[in-house]
This record gives sequence, C-alpha cells and structure tokens, in this order.
Amino acid sequence: MEYFECLFCDKKFPVDVFDIFCSHCREPMICYSPPGKKNFHLDKVNPLEKFRDFLPLEKIGKELSLGEGNSPLIGLNRLKEKYGLPDLYAKDESFNPTGSFKDMGTAVSVQKAVSLGINKIGTVSTGNMAASTAAYGARANVKTYVLVKEDVTQEKLLSAGIFGASLIKVKGDYGELTKKSFSIGKKKKIYFMNSVDPFRIEGYKMIGFEIFLQSNREAPQYIFLPVSAGGHIIGLIKAFQELKQQDLIQKIPTFVGVQAEGCSPLAAAFTAGQTRFQRLQKVKTIAQSISNPDPPAGNTVLKLIRENNGFITSVRDEDILKAQKELAQLEGIFCLPASSTTLAGLWKFKKEVKFDRNDKIILVITGTGLKSLKAIDPAGLDIHQASLEDLDATIQTVEPSSLRGMK
Amino acid sequence: MEYFECLFCDKKFPVDVFDIFCSHCREPMICYSPPGKKNFHLDKVNPLEKFRDFLPLEKIGKELSLGEGNSPLIGLNRLKEKYGLPDLYAKDESFNPTGSFKDMGTAVSVQKAVSLGINKIGTVSTGNMAASTAAYGARANVKTYVLVKEDVTQEKLLSAGIFGASLIKVKGDYGELTKKSFSIGKKKKIYFMNSVDPFRIEGYKMIGFEIFLQSNREAPQYIFLPVSAGGHIIGLIKAFQELKQQDLIQKIPTFVGVQAEGCSPLAAAFTAGQTRFQRLQKVKTIAQSISNPDPPAGNTVLKLIRENNGFITSVRDEDILKAQKELAQLEGIFCLPASSTTLAGLWKFKKEVKFDRNDKIILVITGTGLKSLKAIDPAGLDIHQASLEDLDATIQTVEPSSLRGMK
Repeated sequence: MEYFECLFCDKKFPVDVFDIFCSHCREPMICYSPPGKKNFHLDKVNPLEKFRDFLPLEKIGKELSLGEGNSPLIGLNRLKEKYGLPDLYAKDESFNPTGSFKDMGTAVSVQKAVSLGINKIGTVSTGNMAASTAAYGARANVKTYVLVKEDVTQEKLLSAGIFGASLIKVKGDYGELTKKSFSIGKKKKIYFMNSVDPFRIEGYKMIGFEIFLQSNREAPQYIFLPVSAGGHIIGLIKAFQELKQQDLIQKIPTFVGVQAEGCSPLAAAFTAGQTRFQRLQKVKTIAQSISNPDPPAGNTVLKLIRENNGFITSVRDEDILKAQKELAQLEGIFCLPASSTTLAGLWKFKKEVKFDRNDKIILVITGTGLKSLKAIDPAGLDIHQASLEDLDATIQTVEPSSLRGMK
Repeated sequence: MEYFECLFCDKKFPVDVFDIFCSHCREPMICYSPPGKKNFHLDKVNPLEKFRDFLPLEKIGKELSLGEGNSPLIGLNRLKEKYGLPDLYAKDESFNPTGSFKDMGTAVSVQKAVSLGINKIGTVSTGNMAASTAAYGARANVKTYVLVKEDVTQEKLLSAGIFGASLIKVKGDYGELTKKSFSIGKKKKIYFMNSVDPFRIEGYKMIGFEIFLQSNREAPQYIFLPVSAGGHIIGLIKAFQELKQQDLIQKIPTFVGVQAEGCSPLAAAFTAGQTRFQRLQKVKTIAQSISNPDPPAGNTVLKLIRENNGFITSVRDEDILKAQKELAQLEGIFCLPASSTTLAGLWKFKKEVKFDRNDKIILVITGTGLKSLKAIDPAGLDIHQASLEDLDATIQTVEPSSLRGMK
C-alpha cells in the first residue's frame, strides 16, 4: 500500500491522485517513501529506470519517455572568478523535452496516470507546466486539459496547444482556478497534475540525485533555486533527505530558495519568522513563471526550509535581468528570468554569508530563455548596420569599441 | 600535420581555418581523418572526450563545453503503427545548449579556435547557427561577430544577441555575404565557422556515432535528415564511413536528404541526375532554417549521396506542417518545420520503397519548435473559453467532441 504524507501535520493517508490535500490541515501531501536499502541502476540512461528504487512506480513504461533527465552540470568558472566565489555550477534543466524542469515531474506523474488506467489528465498553468503536461499527455495518448488564465500570451498557448491538448482560457481568480481544478478533477476523474502533485515532486527528486551523482557522489554545500508553488524545492530537499537516509551523504545541502521581489510571499514570511505566508493580492515581476501569489505548498516549504537550515530570499527584477545577461555573456547559458534569480540570489546571499573555499554551490537553471524572449530588452544588444560594400569598415569599428559586445 | 580534403576533386591541403575552399574546384573541404585503430571512450559523458580518437583536436578544453551531445533516441511507436512502418526513431538534437544540432558542430569549431589562439570568431546565419556560435563564443570569451540579413526577425536577433555577440545586419545578397565573410575573416583573422566549416562537420559526425551507439552498435538502415548548406549530412555520412573503416559496421545507412519544395536546389539536381546544382533566385518555404538557395557544399553532397546510394527529395510546406503537428500530437515532440521535413520525406519515400520489417529508420530532429512559434497556425489549436462558474460545463462539452483535441 502506498501512502501520502503530510509534512505539515505528520499524518499519512492512502494514495488518491484525485485528492492530494491533507484532510486535517489542507496542505498538499507528498509521497511517503518507506525506508530500506535502495540502489541506483547506473546502467540505465532513463532517469526513471536509474532511480526506480526511489520512485513510487510499480513499473516503468519506457515508451512514455521523451528523453527527460541527464541534464548537464556546467561549471561557471568565469562567474566564480568575477565574484570571488568557491566552485560554482549550473544544473541546467532546460535540457529537457519541453525546455524546463517540469518535464522531470510530468514524466513521473504521467507514468502514474497510465499505470492507474487514467485516460484524462490536466494542469493549471500559464507556461512551462502547460507545455510539459501537454507533451507527455500526447505521448501517452491521454486526453489533456490545460487550464490557463484569460490573458495568457499567444506564445504560451502555441507551445502547449501544438501537442493537441484542449486549452481552456478561464476568466477569474487564478488561485480559485487551481482549487476548482482539483474539485472538477475528482468528479470527472481528470488527474490534475498541478505544480504540487506528489508524483510530480517525486520526479523533481531525480534532479537532486543527478546533482549528487554529478558531484562525485557528494552533497554540494549550497543549492540555489527559484521558488514558486513549492513543489520543486520540496522534491530537491526530499532527494537529499533520502540520500542521507541511505547513508550516502552526511549532511543535507543548505537550500536557498529565491523569489522575485514583486512576488515573494514566502521570502516575506521567512524573513518575518512566520510559519504561514500571507497570500498576495497583486504581483509584478519579469520572472513570470514564478509569480504565484498563493503558493499551494508555501507553508510546507517554510517548515522544510527551517527544519533544514535553509533560507528564502527575494531579488529585484533589475538584478534578475542583470543575472540573466551575465549567465549568457560570461557562461553561454541563456535561461528564463525565473532561473537567473538564482544568480541574483547568490549575489545577495554572499554579502551575508562567508563561503568556505572548498564549498560547492549549485544554481538550478529551471528553463530555457527561448520561452521568454520578450523579457530581453533589445536596447541592451550590440546591433550594427552595414551594406556588403562597407561591411569591412563596419567590422573595423565594432572591433575596438566593445569587448564581446558587452555593454 | 593535419589536412583538409576536397571530396569533390580528391585533393588534400594543409589545414587553414581561414581558407576552407579547395583551390582547384572551390568546393568546401572537410577534415582528412587518417586511418588507424580508434576507440570510443565510453567512460566519458562529454561527447568530445568520448569520441576524441575520431576528432581533429589535440586537446579538449572541457571548460568550453555547454553540455552538448547525448541527445536521446526516442521511439516513435504511434507513427510507426499509424503508417505501417518498421522501427522508427527520432534522434532529437533539440536537446542541445541552444536547442539545435548546430551546437555539436560549434563545440568542435570553438575548441579549434581556442587551441589555435584565435580570439575572434564569426558566423553568417539568421537563426540556429547565430545563437549557437554566440553562445559558445561567450563561453570561450572570444569576440563573436554574427552577420545577419537585413530583414532578420527580432526573435532571432534576441536569441543570439543575448550572448553579447556583435550583430551586424547586412544589406545585400545572402550568398555574397557568405563569400564576403570568408574574405574578411582571412584578412582580419576572424574565424568564420559557417555552415560548412570542416571542424563544424567533424562535430556533426558525433551525432552519427551517438546514433550507432544508441542503436546497439548497429547502423540503422535509413537516416532521414533535412539538407540545407550540406554540412550536417556530410558529417553524418562521414561518421558512418569511419565506423565502416573501423570494421564496426558492414554497411553505411541509406541517407535520405530532405529539402522543402520551395527551396530544393539539391533535390532538383539529384532528380535530374546532375552533378552540380543550379543556384536559385527565389525561395519560399515555412522551413526557414533550411531555405538556402545556394548551398555551399551542395555539389559535394550530390556526389556523396550518389556514391553512397542515398537520395535527396523535397516536400511541400503543407506536409511539413502536417508532419510537425503529428510529431507533436502523436509522439510529444515539438520540432522546427525544418526538422519535420524528415517525417514528410518518409511519407513520400515509403510510396516508392518497400521497407523490410527488420529495418530501422531514424529521423534526425534538428531543432526545437520553440525557435519558430510563428510557423504554427493558432486556428489549428483546440482553444475554449470559460468562466470559473461554467468551467465544469465547458469541460463536459470539450470531452466528447474531440479526442485529444486533434482536428
């Protein structure tokens, strides 16, 4: 028998994918992972097969895979030098089927759906999760509903709609829409694998295992990642908790969750020492994919972060954009503004904390910048005009004036 | 001493990255790979290290890597069934740092640049290659020039410009611009790693080696891939030639190069049995990234394809878009229109060729559809409107009317 576990009030319940909220405290539950010796299956490429001992899946349908996982851990040596930091790496989750970490979670949730014989799935999202759920839904040949806000951009509709999902633009409050999706899902047997779906969170665990394996089987000292609904950071913390349970590491990394200042309900609660966050009425940030005013797993995240000596901080849009640019121009990594919050968070954090020179810091890059081209200001680019005839002379003028075009 | 080799007139020349055209016939040259036993280094993740015996690199600077390679080979079982095909797979190169196969080539060219002490690189491109060269140029901290057409889209400028490259919009003929880039490069010591750069082609070879390893160390019977300038297909054919030279395979796969009907100079020449193609004056196709009217390696490709019993065919835009949609809706893979030419080409090809049931067919997916959202017709998507109150009823109406929203 599988169980969900409420981290907030420490109760366990039998698994029901249509009802993932604790009946006592209404916090979202996660999968309970029973103790016992578990192994990595390193002969496998597919992460679900590689980490199957740690996942709540009876069997793995390889045909449902879209090639998720195995994203690179990329050294950030120039940023390390520029800011006098210890070893710094990007775990770049944009190397996933639809270009974001969401695929790691969707891959597991869709396996669960298929194994339970569920033929209708859905999600509430305006961006990364919409495309991810639509892609895996297509792959699994299940009917897929994507509920989006009324004012969703055309780009986001296209990148999910191309997979044949039914897109429904819904007028009304987004937080209410999420709640409504669960009640409709329960009634109509549509498995809404939203941002804090317990099986989705199990998928995010795999990112933690990959970081461990890529770091010579050690836990890094610090992991910076963006925090929105809370599912991602819960998955990563759970990964390292399970590695500790397996005696593979001594100490869980210090997690630094980063929010955008214009939407930082958890950073505010963390700073104020509160155990529950205040839902925001208005949000405004360039980091759209983490602009959730009412994060469903927010209180659980606050508890987990505190129990594990982590931090939640917030960063300004201008620093997010500066960090996005530096990641691109110094390291060759073009990520979402939501992802570059990690570097901006590191800038802020390093003023207060003294790193040890042997520390290892990981920034989790959650998605590709291609999904949010509109966030880039063309005025910041190094653009010139020439004709074929004067190209030679134009290149001459470009040459000395700007080193690599940085402005 | 390293040599370039002209496949067109079978001559060899010492390597000079600033002068890659044969002084006899003016065709672009490729790297000459001397015979001798070579090994795969399968303990390595980085493809340049894994395939280093096959690459013309003295040493490999791991710090220049952006995590290229190791893209998945994804089974296309639903398409296989729908069209009564033998085993069908996508080699999905959109799992690369900037979302296209170009990164495999740029990774090698940039290694060469750095090892030669070159600190200025460039490319002529309006799309995938611009972003790829700009990203690796940033990573390597070399000045990067990207020459683009005057009417380049804002999206393409942004996705290359973010890396800090100097973008120069050039008025005038695109074919002439490419030629001019080489002459300027030679004079100013800017290494223009354009589409048929010999080291770039060595990088594309790695895609062939990966296909071989992922296919249980066998050569597939058929490989379909888009053909534009010609560098990609030359690299893949060279990969399998070298595998044969190493006695690892018996037979080179049948290559089917696919062009868009609105820009198919090589398919036209192939069909007419000509050894040289006619440069086009006007092109028109949705598959922008393969709309090259004057492919620099075109004649070499015609020769190679003929020598290896391959084919070059062309497909209509409407079939390209239909193929793009089917790859997304049946398999969960959202690719560029240029990439879905492969499936459209397979549809056409299977009318004329009888596959053996034991055959294995590979479609090379060259890049992610996120780079070309404009190619999608929103009218083809399954979009609905609802309020929170009538969401329930709306889902009810969506449900029976459309299976997975396919129209």
